[in-house]
Amino acid sequence: MRRLYHQPLSPFCRKVRLALAEKKIEVELVEEKPWERRMDFLRMNPAGQVPVLKIDSLVFADSQAIFEYIEETTPEPPLLPRNPALRAEARRLTAWFDDKFHNEVTANLLYERVNKKLSKSGYPESGKIKAGLRNIKYHLDYIGWLMDHRRWLAGDTMTIADFAAAAQLSCLDYIGDVDWSRNSGLHEWYAKIKSRPAFRSILADLVPGFTPPQHYADLDF
Amino acid sequence: MRRLYHQPLSPFCRKVRLALAEKKIEVELVEEKPWERRMDFLRMNPAGQVPVLKIDSLVFADSQAIFEYIEETTPEPPLLPRNPALRAEARRLTAWFDDKFHNEVTANLLYERVNKKLSKSGYPESGKIKAGLRNIKYHLDYIGWLMDHRRWLAGDTMTIADFAAAAQLSCLDYIGDVDWSRNSGLHEWYAKIKSRPAFRSILADLVPGFTPPQHYADLDF
Repeated sequence: MRRLYHQPLSPFCRKVRLALAEKKIEVELVEEKPWERRMDFLRMNPAGQVPVLKIDSLVFADSQAIFEYIEETTPEPPLLPRNPALRAEARRLTAWFDDKFHNEVTANLLYERVNKKLSKSGYPESGKIKAGLRNIKYHLDYIGWLMDHRRWLAGDTMTIADFAAAAQLSCLDYIGDVDWSRNSGLHEWYAKIKSRPAFRSILADLVPGFTPPQHYADLDF
Repeated sequence: MRRLYHQPLSPFCRKVRLALAEKKIEVELVEEKPWERRMDFLRMNPAGQVPVLKIDSLVFADSQAIFEYIEETTPEPPLLPRNPALRAEARRLTAWFDDKFHNEVTANLLYERVNKKLSKSGYPESGKIKAGLRNIKYHLDYIGWLMDHRRWLAGDTMTIADFAAAAQLSCLDYIGDVDWSRNSGLHEWYAKIKSRPAFRSILADLVPGFTPPQHYADLDF
């Protein structure tokens, strides 16, 4: 029995779902509302965060720990290069999107516009939204710069870094906050990753009360 | 040539220094003030954060990416267990201290009391310090609870999770913010880890303008 406790618009859940799907590992998706702080969920993960992966009696939490476990136990197709220095670059960029992009952009835009409403914990703060809209620009430029020099974000092959970035951006695209025309490298990269079969189930998710823009699930965006 | 760009009271630098020392990898320590945003440093790590590890012409950033690189290239002594599920537990707890503890405690206490002064970026906010002092209690209780059930934080062997936790706590101990008497498991665990040779160079660091309490470098605290 493999079960993933998740939220449809959580970038960390999307990162793990993309890795699972790419490796063709089937899981039962169970929607968890972490803000309800359900006792049985907190017992599985005292951090109170999604995703949580349950495989029989084993419980895994933290998206990067889950990813490394999947990569170690189902190595094909690899989502980290073989060379240790290239692996470090893929992990550096994964942390860039999980930490830096998340804190500077996703927390300011998605959490203000969507999560506060879903969890009934207040109203969006305009200062944070302004900061998020300002910050996303230089992150999109960084992706463009990387794509001027590389085939994928971390080098010649697709890695977990591409999924970490696409996970954050696909959530923000759901609320129309990504300017895909900002540079051509960004657009080409997202078109490549969006067309992967692993992306389909993610783009099919809908969140009641929020309608994504028309281009959201369109491969020709 | 191996060089680590660091700050003495950065928990992420301490985590990497502990891993390097445990594996007997010698590095030249270079103090970097990330708030000065030195151009040559930003070129090495556009995230602008320490630690950065430079080995000849290779540059590594992000403490966990650096750690995984060290573990892969110098496996002995191991700082992750062999079993994938146990590795996931060590990585989950590492993320607990790097992310959750850091954001809820270290950012509120150390960064308010020390980093703001060092970087001349303002004065400590009493609301944040109160939140940090409240939050640290349940984290110390969590360590106590783990030590009631295990020999080390993540299981039977010492792992990077112990270093991640000790790195955060040793920085907070420098400013007297850790109540070691809160539970016996916490005290026993820190006594074990503090007595390791790898800890010596860390405890010898001094930050001008801040004097650690007497017990700070004392193995009998």
